[in-house]
Amino acid sequence: MADIILVLNAGSSSIKFRAFGVHGKALDLVVRGQVDGLHTAPRFTAVDSTGEKTSKDWGAGFGLDHEGAIEHIGGFLRSHGEGHRLIAVGHRVVHGGQTYAGPVRVTPVVLDELEKLVPLAPLHQPHNLAPMRIIARNRPEIPQVACFDTAFHRTTPEVAQAYALPPSITEQGVRRYGFHGLSYEYIASVLPQFAPAAAAGRTVVAHLGNGASMCAIVAGRSVASTMGFTAVDGLPMGTRCGNLDPGVILYLMAALKMDRQAIEDLIYRQSGLLGVSGVSSDMRVLLESPEPRAHFAIDIYTYRIGRELGSLAAAMQGIDALVLTAGVGENAVSIRERIVRDAAWLGLELDPVANQSGGPCISTASSKVPVWVIPANEELMIGQHTLAAIGTTAS
Amino acid sequence: MADIILVLNAGSSSIKFRAFGVHGKALDLVVRGQVDGLHTAPRFTAVDSTGEKTSKDWGAGFGLDHEGAIEHIGGFLRSHGEGHRLIAVGHRVVHGGQTYAGPVRVTPVVLDELEKLVPLAPLHQPHNLAPMRIIARNRPEIPQVACFDTAFHRTTPEVAQAYALPPSITEQGVRRYGFHGLSYEYIASVLPQFAPAAAAGRTVVAHLGNGASMCAIVAGRSVASTMGFTAVDGLPMGTRCGNLDPGVILYLMAALKMDRQAIEDLIYRQSGLLGVSGVSSDMRVLLESPEPRAHFAIDIYTYRIGRELGSLAAAMQGIDALVLTAGVGENAVSIRERIVRDAAWLGLELDPVANQSGGPCISTASSKVPVWVIPANEELMIGQHTLAAIGTTAS
Repeated sequence: MADIILVLNAGSSSIKFRAFGVHGKALDLVVRGQVDGLHTAPRFTAVDSTGEKTSKDWGAGFGLDHEGAIEHIGGFLRSHGEGHRLIAVGHRVVHGGQTYAGPVRVTPVVLDELEKLVPLAPLHQPHNLAPMRIIARNRPEIPQVACFDTAFHRTTPEVAQAYALPPSITEQGVRRYGFHGLSYEYIASVLPQFAPAAAAGRTVVAHLGNGASMCAIVAGRSVASTMGFTAVDGLPMGTRCGNLDPGVILYLMAALKMDRQAIEDLIYRQSGLLGVSGVSSDMRVLLESPEPRAHFAIDIYTYRIGRELGSLAAAMQGIDALVLTAGVGENAVSIRERIVRDAAWLGLELDPVANQSGGPCISTASSKVPVWVIPANEELMIGQHTLAAIGTTAS
Repeated sequence: MADIILVLNAGSSSIKFRAFGVHGKALDLVVRGQVDGLHTAPRFTAVDSTGEKTSKDWGAGFGLDHEGAIEHIGGFLRSHGEGHRLIAVGHRVVHGGQTYAGPVRVTPVVLDELEKLVPLAPLHQPHNLAPMRIIARNRPEIPQVACFDTAFHRTTPEVAQAYALPPSITEQGVRRYGFHGLSYEYIASVLPQFAPAAAAGRTVVAHLGNGASMCAIVAGRSVASTMGFTAVDGLPMGTRCGNLDPGVILYLMAALKMDRQAIEDLIYRQSGLLGVSGVSSDMRVLLESPEPRAHFAIDIYTYRIGRELGSLAAAMQGIDALVLTAGVGENAVSIRERIVRDAAWLGLELDPVANQSGGPCISTASSKVPVWVIPANEELMIGQHTLAAIGTTAS
């Protein structure tokens, strides 16, 4: 009878899940899937480790909510995991505030504290917390663990986290938190297998997914990242603007009469690759597009990556390795080529053949700074944290 | 009978001026001064090239306005410049929008166009324009020339100017304009005398005054700078916050119920060195202060300079020289030392003795990247532009 850890990543309209089988300290992926279209046109899809697919379509207008989705995932696991025993649930949580520098067992007190962080991440935090409450109510015997996208960055020096604002504002928690921490932590945990010297030194990791950021890591610890107080800052993303003069926000209010909600929609959902191109938020579509604005969007994207790479190298006073990860980093050969060529001044030298074949090392043997492509696996990181947390704190 | 060019830099509560004598194409400073405390407690001070000082104090409550101040400056020049003839007035104007890539003769049409840019710089542009209208009315025979803080940056590549926002917003003129252009242009114009090779190559200039920014210059042309749409972005300054996640603005509105005006006050007037330290916006005061927060403010300041230096080096794919200018750059020995030492990874090596004595070169002979201290002189730049503009376009 194998033990199973369930990892949940809940958003406003979807819940992604992975179930891992526990073998000592090792985790094996058993099944992955998601329920999306919550409240509108819910659909369940899953694929197990043998490649067998399962799906269910409730149809448009069916009001499946987070609780219904979690029940369906639970039922699916019971019916498809004969002999398995669910021993814990790990949750991806966007915000752990200033306090949580690592994973934490979910208790009523912890839930209340995480609820207080909702104003810091109103678009994500409530949805991350919803499944915890549901499971605590319906399956109180199952230990739950919260894993934070901000936790890995709590090692960042105070001078890098601070904005040049007065204490009356910074004491409200206005600081650079940084995000994608579970992805960076995973990369930092496996980097020694790829590049032991770089892992002990100064590495920039670029997490280039639909959300995108970069992190400077010295000997496994975050010392700076491109995201700030929120996940809208830094690099341009699929639909988020990235770096933006705060004076632009004041201008949008004063001259264009936009209100807070309209500005939030603009910078989170109508900007980035989608906004500039007018074509798509998907890099694959942009790369195939004949539209000049699609290529301008890509130009901005790679240009900002180059600028931030210089800035993060400065945070470490040099760079020993670059790692590319997540959707674009793992798959977009031509974007990788542009990033590495733009960084030639830092000592990065592309191996075009290795880049074409996906690496994992895509730099030449003589490249002063090696470049690696390493697949993201935040879910495994959450699973490992969850296993460790129940192993050490379960009563 | 010597010809005189008057250079005006008008703000909300002060007008600074310099008068230059014209000798062929060369300009000699004849007198400099200012009227400050407009509308509240006006005071005139001036010092001429022989060191002779003049001052006048109207006392608190005297309602001297821009027109009165200009009349006083005009009267002072007439009474102290016997035999001088005012041939033109040059104005510092913060914003030239996307159109003005160089100085322009002031005409009613130009004034109207510059007026349209007020929403892009509401705190400065109206005060810059006020003296032009007054002089056009009272002394219509005097040619006037507008010189823009944005003009030097119009060579910046489109990809560096663009925010990742949709065309509906960018077509309103929302882009990175960059400022302090007259200071950078002056440095670029004299750099060949100091470092001919660097002047032909890639230079970062750090203008570190009460306002502060940095500019990447390749062969005399701006290719990137730290200020953006407004002069609040980039480096922390005396009272401005510099780089700030746009999500912070949304948070201040939603969670702290701050309105646009309160946020503007916060990020322009209550942040930066003053806001963080709670002590002063003046670097000299902070350096002498025993307050830990004063030193934290300095830490943030130098840290951000280091990060931006890396980012700007990336914009040029390397760096051949660093130039420090303006108040802090010209005078704060210990700040210069920190900036150069933090940039050792880029090949900068400080000469402590030369730094102590003020340079102009403060790097060692073996420093891969030389570092220069060059005094700012935006006013001379404006004077030269004004002379050139009336020489080529006067009817």
